[in-house]
Amino acid sequence: MATASEANALGYNLKVDYVIRYSFGDVDQSQATTQLEKLLRSLAEAGLQCEIRQGDESSLLVFVRATKKRLNRAVYRSRVRDWLYGIRNAEPEPASSITPQTEAERLRVISQMITLPTEEGGAGITPKLGEWKNVTALFPLHDEETNKKWLHEWSQKTFLSDDDLDQIRNKFGESVGFYFSFLQSYFRFLIFPAVFGFSCWFLFGGYSIIYTVVNSLWCIVFVEYWKRKEVDLSCRWQTKGVSAVQTKRREFKPEKEIRDEGTGEMRGVFPATKRMQRQLLQIPFALFSAIGLGVIIATCFAIEIFIAELYSGPLKTYLIFIPTILVSALVPTMSAVLMSIATKLNDYENYETSDAYDFALTQKVFIINFITSYLPILLTAFVYVPFASLIVPYLDIFRLTVRPFVSKEHATANCSTFQIDPHRLRKQVIYFTVTAQIVGFAMETIVPYLKQHALREYKAYNKKRNGKLEKNGDKDSPERSPVVTYDDPDEEKEFLKRVRNEVELPEYGVTEDLREMCIQFGYLALFSPTWPLVPLSFFINNWIELRSDFFKICKEFQRPTPLRCDTIGPWLDTLGFLSWVGSITSAALVYMFNGDARTGPNGEPTDIRGWALLLVIFFSEHLYLIVRYAVQTAMTRLEPPNVRKERAERYLMRKRYLESTIQAEANEELDKDDLVSEVPPELTRSALEEDARHNSEHSADPAERFWMRQRGWTESAKVGAGIIQAQPSTGTAKKQQ
Amino acid sequence: MATASEANALGYNLKVDYVIRYSFGDVDQSQATTQLEKLLRSLAEAGLQCEIRQGDESSLLVFVRATKKRLNRAVYRSRVRDWLYGIRNAEPEPASSITPQTEAERLRVISQMITLPTEEGGAGITPKLGEWKNVTALFPLHDEETNKKWLHEWSQKTFLSDDDLDQIRNKFGESVGFYFSFLQSYFRFLIFPAVFGFSCWFLFGGYSIIYTVVNSLWCIVFVEYWKRKEVDLSCRWQTKGVSAVQTKRREFKPEKEIRDEGTGEMRGVFPATKRMQRQLLQIPFALFSAIGLGVIIATCFAIEIFIAELYSGPLKTYLIFIPTILVSALVPTMSAVLMSIATKLNDYENYETSDAYDFALTQKVFIINFITSYLPILLTAFVYVPFASLIVPYLDIFRLTVRPFVSKEHATANCSTFQIDPHRLRKQVIYFTVTAQIVGFAMETIVPYLKQHALREYKAYNKKRNGKLEKNGDKDSPERSPVVTYDDPDEEKEFLKRVRNEVELPEYGVTEDLREMCIQFGYLALFSPTWPLVPLSFFINNWIELRSDFFKICKEFQRPTPLRCDTIGPWLDTLGFLSWVGSITSAALVYMFNGDARTGPNGEPTDIRGWALLLVIFFSEHLYLIVRYAVQTAMTRLEPPNVRKERAERYLMRKRYLESTIQAEANEELDKDDLVSEVPPELTRSALEEDARHNSEHSADPAERFWMRQRGWTESAKVGAGIIQAQPSTGTAKKQQ
Repeated sequence: MATASEANALGYNLKVDYVIRYSFGDVDQSQATTQLEKLLRSLAEAGLQCEIRQGDESSLLVFVRATKKRLNRAVYRSRVRDWLYGIRNAEPEPASSITPQTEAERLRVISQMITLPTEEGGAGITPKLGEWKNVTALFPLHDEETNKKWLHEWSQKTFLSDDDLDQIRNKFGESVGFYFSFLQSYFRFLIFPAVFGFSCWFLFGGYSIIYTVVNSLWCIVFVEYWKRKEVDLSCRWQTKGVSAVQTKRREFKPEKEIRDEGTGEMRGVFPATKRMQRQLLQIPFALFSAIGLGVIIATCFAIEIFIAELYSGPLKTYLIFIPTILVSALVPTMSAVLMSIATKLNDYENYETSDAYDFALTQKVFIINFITSYLPILLTAFVYVPFASLIVPYLDIFRLTVRPFVSKEHATANCSTFQIDPHRLRKQVIYFTVTAQIVGFAMETIVPYLKQHALREYKAYNKKRNGKLEKNGDKDSPERSPVVTYDDPDEEKEFLKRVRNEVELPEYGVTEDLREMCIQFGYLALFSPTWPLVPLSFFINNWIELRSDFFKICKEFQRPTPLRCDTIGPWLDTLGFLSWVGSITSAALVYMFNGDARTGPNGEPTDIRGWALLLVIFFSEHLYLIVRYAVQTAMTRLEPPNVRKERAERYLMRKRYLESTIQAEANEELDKDDLVSEVPPELTRSALEEDARHNSEHSADPAERFWMRQRGWTESAKVGAGIIQAQPSTGTAKKQQ
Repeated sequence: MATASEANALGYNLKVDYVIRYSFGDVDQSQATTQLEKLLRSLAEAGLQCEIRQGDESSLLVFVRATKKRLNRAVYRSRVRDWLYGIRNAEPEPASSITPQTEAERLRVISQMITLPTEEGGAGITPKLGEWKNVTALFPLHDEETNKKWLHEWSQKTFLSDDDLDQIRNKFGESVGFYFSFLQSYFRFLIFPAVFGFSCWFLFGGYSIIYTVVNSLWCIVFVEYWKRKEVDLSCRWQTKGVSAVQTKRREFKPEKEIRDEGTGEMRGVFPATKRMQRQLLQIPFALFSAIGLGVIIATCFAIEIFIAELYSGPLKTYLIFIPTILVSALVPTMSAVLMSIATKLNDYENYETSDAYDFALTQKVFIINFITSYLPILLTAFVYVPFASLIVPYLDIFRLTVRPFVSKEHATANCSTFQIDPHRLRKQVIYFTVTAQIVGFAMETIVPYLKQHALREYKAYNKKRNGKLEKNGDKDSPERSPVVTYDDPDEEKEFLKRVRNEVELPEYGVTEDLREMCIQFGYLALFSPTWPLVPLSFFINNWIELRSDFFKICKEFQRPTPLRCDTIGPWLDTLGFLSWVGSITSAALVYMFNGDARTGPNGEPTDIRGWALLLVIFFSEHLYLIVRYAVQTAMTRLEPPNVRKERAERYLMRKRYLESTIQAEANEELDKDDLVSEVPPELTRSALEEDARHNSEHSADPAERFWMRQRGWTESAKVGAGIIQAQPSTGTAKKQQ
C-alpha cells in the first residue's frame, strides 16, 4: 500500500515511474523510428504504459508507468524468486493481493520489468548496450518535495534516527540505505575517539601510547560492530542473502558454449583458470601503480624538501609552491590513467556476474587510492625522518638543475646545517585530515553544483539565441521552431523542464562515496596517533558529509534505480585491512616519535633501534590480531535484534510445518493398528507365546525367531522383571546396609 | 531399499538396530522393574519393537528394532526438517514411499526415534541422564563381516577410493566419514612433501630455504584445499548446512525462563554477557596451563641439560633417564588435571548447543596440546640454543642439590667447557615425529586391544570360578545359577556373547583422532625444516594410522551412532592457525640455523642479529598471509564438482517453479484484455485521441491528463516518429558527409 507521502510524490511526478531517454542523434531517421516502435512495443508487452515527449534536439523522453495488475504480478514473481533463494521466509501471498511495500520495491520491480529478458517476463531493454544503445538513460524522477523536507529536518539534528534511515531505504533502495547507515554508524562511533582524542591531545600531545591503544581497539570494535550491523540491517530490510541472486553481466563474453550436465541447458562459460591467468596481470599492475605514483610523489617530495630546507636562492617564496602544483597536477592525471588501465584490466578479466566485477574493480581502485592517499605520509614518517641525513646529500642532483639559473653561493644552504623539520609529519597529517577533506567537500559538492547551474544558464542562453536566429533566418519552416522552444502543454511546462534538467545529470554510484569514507577511516587507523584531533575533525566533517552527500544525490545526480544489497561489499574488507595496517603503523609511529628525548642534534630521532622497532611492531600486530579474534568471538555471541526476529519467524514457520506433519501422522495412526501394540489379549497370552516360540523354532530365519520370542512390550517387561528379580539385589542390599 | 550387504549385515545381527543396556545394579528391584516398564512402553509408543535378554549380573540388554512403517515416517519427518532448514533442495516424497537411503541414515533416524523428546515424535530416552540414568549404553551392533572384508581390502591398497569413503560414510555416518576423508586427503597430499623433503634432505640437509618455502606453501594449499573439499563432501553427502539444525544440550541450565517475543514460547535463556564473563576465565586457565606445564617441561629440560652436559659425577648413565621419567610421569598427570579443569570450565560456561560446547572444549584441549607437544622443541630452538651460555650458569642450583651426594670435584664439568649440542634440536624433532608416533600408535591401538582381551579372559575365569563356587555352595537356589552361566537359547549363544562383549567397550568419539592428526600437522608446519624427512615419516605413519584407526573403531569401541556433520569443525581453524605459526617458526629456524658458518666456538650460533631475525619473521609472516589470500581467492573460483551439481539441482528446481509461475500468468493473460493493448481501433483512432485529450483537459487530476494524451503504444510511436522526423537529421547528415 502506497503511503501518503508516496502517493503525493507520485502525484507530484504525474505518476511517472521511470523516464527513458531515447537518443536518435546518430542514427538514420527511419531506423530511429523503427527502433522506437520496437521499444514501445516491448514496453507495452511487458505491461508498461508510455507517454512520449520531446527531450532535447536529438532525444525523446519516454515516460513509463506500470499498470497495476502487471506490476503486482511482477512483484509476486520477484518475491517468489526471493523465497526460492531463501531471502524471504514465508511463501508469498497470491499475486492478486500483493502490492509493493515501499517506493523502492516498486521502482526496483518496474526496473526489472523494463530490463529483464523477455523469457523472464521483462521487456528486455538494456540501456546503452547492443541493440538498445539508443536508450541512453533510464531513471526514476526525484521526489523533490520530500528531499527538501528531509534535508531541512536533518540539518537540525545531530543523528539520523533508524526511522530516517528506513525512509532513505524506502526511497532510494537498500544500496543507498546501506551507505547512509554506514556513514551514520561511523559518525556515531566517532564521538568516542573525538572526545578521547581531544583529551589525550590536551593532556599528552601527540604519540601517546594510551591514545594509540584505544584508537586501535576502537577500530577493531567499529569494524566488527559494522559487520554485525550489516547483518542486522539486512534482516530488517529483508535483503539477507540477496547476493545469492546474482545478475549476469551482459558484457560477459563466454569462451565457449557448453551443455550444462546438471541443468541440461546451453550456457556460456569462461574457464576460471584462464581468468586467473588474466588476474595475474594485477601483480604487474599493482607494481606499476606503486612505482608510477610512488616516483611522482617521492620526486615532488624530494623537490619540496630541497626547496624548503636546502635551497636558499632567489624566488624561494614562489618556488616553494612548485612541488604542490606538480603533485596536484601529476597525481590525479596518473590516477586517471591508472584507473582507465584498471577498468580495462577488469573488463579483460571478463567476470560473469556484476558482483564479481565490482569486487575486482574495487580492489584495483583501492590499490591506487591507498598509494595516493597514504604514501606521502608514509614517506615522511618512515623514510624522511629516520633516513633524511642519508638521503639529503643525494638531493644534490637538484642543485645541478638549479645551478644554471642562480649563482653558486646562493643556491643552497650547506648540507651539514640541514635540519629535519620535526613538525613536518604532523603538518602533513593535518593537511590530509582537515584541509584535504574541506577541499574534497568543495570539489565534490559545491563545484559540480555551480558548474551545473552555469551550464544550464549557458544552454538556455544558447537556445534563446539559436531560436532567435532561426526565427529570423528560417521563417519558412514553421515546424522546426517549436522543436527548439518545446511545444509543451502549459500545465506540463514546469514538470518537463524539471525532467529535462534531471536527464542531463550523471548517474549516481554509491561506490565513490564509500571509497571516500574508507580512505578517511584509513587516516584515522594509520596516522591519528600523530595528531589525536583527527577523529574530532572527522566527526565534524562527517556531519556535513552526510547532509552534503544527500544533497548531492538529490541535486547533482539522476535519482538512482533502487538496488538491493546486504553489505557494503568489498569495502568492508578494506576497513578490516586498514585497521590491521594501522596496528603496524601506529605502533611504529609511537615508538619512533614518542618523547622528545629521542631527537638528535638535527631533528633526527637518534635512539631508534631496528630490533626494538620490529619487536614493537611484532607485538602490536599480534596483540591486534588476538584482540580482534576475541572481539569477533564476543560479537558473534550477541545476536542483533532483527536477526533474532528473523530467526524467530523462520523457526515459527518451520514449527508450523513440522507440527502439521506430525499431526497428519497422528491422525493416520488413530485409524490403524500398529504392529507393536498392547492389543495381544491378556488372557491367552501365554498360550500364544508358546505358539509363537514353537512356530519360530521351525522358522527358517533366525532373525525372525529371535524377534518372535517376546510379543509386545508388556511381555518384554515381564521377562525383564523376571531377570531383575533373579539377581541378588545389590541395590537394596546396599541400602539396607 | 536396503542394499544386499546391508540386508546381510542386518541378518547377521538378527536385524537388531540398537542395543540398550539397562543397568539395575544400584536401584531397588521394584523401582528397576517400574522404570524398565516405562522404558519399554516409551519405545513401543515411538514405534520400536523390543526383545529383552540378560546382560551381565546387573544389567539387561534391550534389543530394539524399528517397525518399517514408523521408521519410514520418521525418515520422512527428518527429511522434511532438512528441507525446511535448506539442507535438501527438493521437498521430500510422501512418507509412504520413502525409505532410508543408507544404513547410516537408518540408524541415525532410529537413534532420533529413541532419543528425541516425545513432542517431536521420539521416545524421549536420554541415556545416562536424569530419569534415564539407568540406560547406560545405546549403540548399534558392529557389522563384523563387512569390517573384516574392508580391513583386508584396504591393507592391500595405498589409497582409499571415493567409493570406499562413501562406504564408510554409509556405515558409520558422516562424522566418521569426514574423519577418514580428511585422513585420506592429508595422506594423499603428503606424497609431495615426502618426495620433495627427501630430495631436499639428500641435497641440502636441514634448514634449506627452498624446502621451508615449499613446505609453507604446501601447508597453505592443503588447508585451503581441505576447506573446499569439505564443501564438496558435504554436497556429495547431502549434509551441507546441517549445522543449522542444532541440537540443544540437555545439560544446559537456563538462568531464567522468558517468553520469546517472536515465537511466543517460553524458553530458557542464559545471557550471552554472563557467559562471556565466564569465558574470561579461559585467560587465567591458559596462563595457568602454560605456566604449569611450562615449568614442568622447562625444569626437566634444565635437569636433562645439567646431567647430560654439565654433570660428570657417578651414576651418570642412570641419572640421565631421570628427566625423561619425570616428563613421562608429570606431563600426562598435569595434562589430565588441566583437562578436567577445562571440562569443568566448559560445563560452567553453560553452552546451549552441543556444537558450541564442543567448539569451546576443543579450543581448550588445543591449548593444552599445543603446550605439551610443541613447547619442548620451542624451548630448545629459541631458548636453549641462543641463550644457553647465559642460562647454563644458573643451573648451579642443581649442583647444590647434587653436592651432598658426591664429592665436589666430580660434581660437574666446568661451565666454561660447556658445549651446546648442535644436534639436540634435530634429535628432538626426530623423537617427536618418529618415535612418539610409533609409541602413540602402540598406546592407542595395540595396548587397549591386549588389555581388553586380558580383561575378557579374566572375567570369564572369574565367572567360571564363581559359578563353580555357587554351584557347590548354593545348590538349593537353582534359579540363580542360570543367571551366571546365561541361559541363552543355543542358536543365540554366539550372538549374545558378541553383544555382551560389545556392550563393555567404550564409546567412540572422533575428536580424539582428529586432534592427533592436527597435532601431527603442527610438527610438519612448525618444525619440519629442521629435518626434511618429517613428511616422509608421516606419510608412512598415516598409511598405518588410517587402517589402525578403522581397526580401533571396529574392535575397541562400540559402533558409533551415525552423526551428521559438514565439516571437521574447530579443528579446521586449528590447522589454519598452525600453518600460520609455522610461517613464523620455520622462518626463524632457517635464519638461525641455516649454514654452519654461524656456529660459534661452543656450538652457539653467533651471528644472529635481533633485527635481522625479526625482519625475516616479519616478511615471512606477511608473505605467508598474502600468499594465503591469493590461494584462497584462487580456490573460491574453482568450483568443486559436487558443489556444481548441487547448484545445478537447486537452479533447476527454482527454474521449474518460476516457469510454472510465469506460465500461470501467461494463461491468465490470454483470457483478459490488457490496458495497454493494440486493440484501439485503427479507424477511429484520431477521433478517440481528440476525445481523450478533450476529456483529459477537463479532468481534475493532472497526472491522469498527462497519461491520457497518448493512447496505447502505437499512438506513442506515432508521436515519437513525428518528433524524430521534425529534427534536422544529424545522423543522416553526418553519414552523407
